[in-house]
Amino acid sequence: MSKLFMFEKPLGMRDTLPELYEIKKQVRTKMMEEIQAWGYQSIQTPTLEYYETVGIASAISNRQLFKLLDQQGHTLVLRPDMTAPIARVAASRLKNEGFPLRLAYDANVFRTQEREGGRPAEFEQIGIELIGDPTSSADAEVIALMIAALKSAGLTNFSVAIGHVGFVNALFLDILGTEERANGLRRFLYEKNYVGYREHVKNLPLSSIDQQQLLQLLQLRGGKDIISKARDITNNPSARKAIDDLDHLWQQLECFGVADFLKIDLNIVSHMSYYTGILFEGYADNLGFLLCSGGRYDQLLAKFNRPTAATGFAIRLDRLVEALGDVQNRPSISLIIYSQERMEEAIQLAQTKRENGERVVLQDIAGIENIDLFTKRYQDVSYCIGKPEKESV
Amino acid sequence: MSKLFMFEKPLGMRDTLPELYEIKKQVRTKMMEEIQAWGYQSIQTPTLEYYETVGIASAISNRQLFKLLDQQGHTLVLRPDMTAPIARVAASRLKNEGFPLRLAYDANVFRTQEREGGRPAEFEQIGIELIGDPTSSADAEVIALMIAALKSAGLTNFSVAIGHVGFVNALFLDILGTEERANGLRRFLYEKNYVGYREHVKNLPLSSIDQQQLLQLLQLRGGKDIISKARDITNNPSARKAIDDLDHLWQQLECFGVADFLKIDLNIVSHMSYYTGILFEGYADNLGFLLCSGGRYDQLLAKFNRPTAATGFAIRLDRLVEALGDVQNRPSISLIIYSQERMEEAIQLAQTKRENGERVVLQDIAGIENIDLFTKRYQDVSYCIGKPEKESV
Repeated sequence: MSKLFMFEKPLGMRDTLPELYEIKKQVRTKMMEEIQAWGYQSIQTPTLEYYETVGIASAISNRQLFKLLDQQGHTLVLRPDMTAPIARVAASRLKNEGFPLRLAYDANVFRTQEREGGRPAEFEQIGIELIGDPTSSADAEVIALMIAALKSAGLTNFSVAIGHVGFVNALFLDILGTEERANGLRRFLYEKNYVGYREHVKNLPLSSIDQQQLLQLLQLRGGKDIISKARDITNNPSARKAIDDLDHLWQQLECFGVADFLKIDLNIVSHMSYYTGILFEGYADNLGFLLCSGGRYDQLLAKFNRPTAATGFAIRLDRLVEALGDVQNRPSISLIIYSQERMEEAIQLAQTKRENGERVVLQDIAGIENIDLFTKRYQDVSYCIGKPEKESV
Repeated sequence: MSKLFMFEKPLGMRDTLPELYEIKKQVRTKMMEEIQAWGYQSIQTPTLEYYETVGIASAISNRQLFKLLDQQGHTLVLRPDMTAPIARVAASRLKNEGFPLRLAYDANVFRTQEREGGRPAEFEQIGIELIGDPTSSADAEVIALMIAALKSAGLTNFSVAIGHVGFVNALFLDILGTEERANGLRRFLYEKNYVGYREHVKNLPLSSIDQQQLLQLLQLRGGKDIISKARDITNNPSARKAIDDLDHLWQQLECFGVADFLKIDLNIVSHMSYYTGILFEGYADNLGFLLCSGGRYDQLLAKFNRPTAATGFAIRLDRLVEALGDVQNRPSISLIIYSQERMEEAIQLAQTKRENGERVVLQDIAGIENIDLFTKRYQDVSYCIGKPEKESV
């Protein structure tokens, strides 16, 4: 174990300097305003939760959890997502509130990284949970609001791919016969390893018709027409039901006026066993990675003893800011440099400017190490130096 | 180790429900606006830092740190304060920026609690650091800005007690002779245990004049007149220098127009060995506990290899909100309940209202469990139910 330099930070940990801070703040504020306008109410939950409760209930795999022990011998985790903590709150402090509940959050979540590869181990998520509403209208609202939030942040080129976990599950179980075999194949979709999927399917002891059907699944990504293509490849009632749900959802999203942003992707199976129905993933056109995601999770609340349906989304603020690209945001700050004898005058001047909405730094000249280096940071500089009788230089 | 209930949270961990969330947000926004107006720029640092670096450098005692191990075998801490992380940033990412640096933050910090006693183990601090300015003007600015921030939050009845660690240190060393004995006595002041202090002094093998001087120290709390009283009790040059500093600072704070909020308290020694000069503590008149504090710490930056003077403050948001007392803040939210056939019309209605700045929940009637329980949460309810030809009910 090497000795650390004083400036080092733990793996995947980041500092946010003023310029990025301001951009993140602007984007966050706009999205939260949109989310509020839809009647969602924000809550905060603690950074630390019990592993036994929220840790296990979360959708994030065990090996990605930051764990520590408390003085009572319980294992704590740094929250890896906000869905499980919000389920806990909905089932405890808010248990007397009638469903549906509309809750929002803006919080940092934590997932360990095994090596330094640009992936942050702590990042900010902005999201919502719509708890206690089993209707397709709830799914539609969540997707429409996610799109509205992205648009409010200024993002224009993005798409949201919608899938349904019930379709893949039914198809796999129908053809493969057991959950174990289905899981084996599902893992390839989860990892978006389509080459591996093909190889795996070709080596399965199946009829060529069954193999064909499994390979056709990979084609079920595209526009609205995928819905009818999906109907064509299977007669399984559960799979057909999933497609009917998707069809209905698409119509509802047309009512919301967001169909231009939508795609169908029946290969989405994110989080293996967490989602129970509709799920979706959002991508910015200029970025390869996932920007936001969500879906229906009707089993989670039961773990907290208040069984009910639920759906929600989470947007990664760091990635959204990256997708937005260069945003000019260097706030203009004025500088007043004074000497002791004119301190009072300088304070008055600063106060007047601040009352007019300006940002003003007030600086005793005796406290400046290097005037040139210091002043170049500010847009304009005034001086209150020397005897009060004189005019400012 | 008992089994946990699903709703349990770790010791000292809190949920913030919507009403309190809104109040905190308002107070935070107002204070950050004030801090920005003074030209401070916000940064964020990670929740996790190395124990070896920031952990040890922080002012918080070891036993209050949340610790965990990373995969490389290093001990990590959940940041117990923001001063040490900001010193790290000032000495690394910002090392080419000229001094003074004016940085602000709004961050949760973590300190373990040994038992459930209403004290949170995670709480939000809003603060600033003014780094690289050794002048008294810098101390004055920090205190004046802290007062301006509290006022901007709506707090009116509060006071800020100012001390100087150099006075107590010089007096103790002068009379007691060794740092060890000085520390023994300083601990009573740190714990604000004045009865224990008196007992301890009476049992020290000192002349009655020396004892008298140590006991007089306890009287050095009050208004501006304490400054001359303090001059009377000692001729020690370091102690007199500390008093001169305080005197000059008071005059500068008069220039800032904040003298009405000030007190002198030469018994403040917070954090034992961290502060190096002026230090101060703010209290709301209606609350017994510390609301905010700060001071000069001219040794910390050297630990990060960029030695320079620094001063700053931190305000505890939770306590400030408590001090502000009952703030009415239930945002008004409207509700539109619709049935499927009129979904599009309901969406249009919601959109129009939202564009007018209203907060509007849109709810499919099929998703409501109990209409009475659900609707009572909203200020007004409209219905788009039944065939589109009909008027709304």
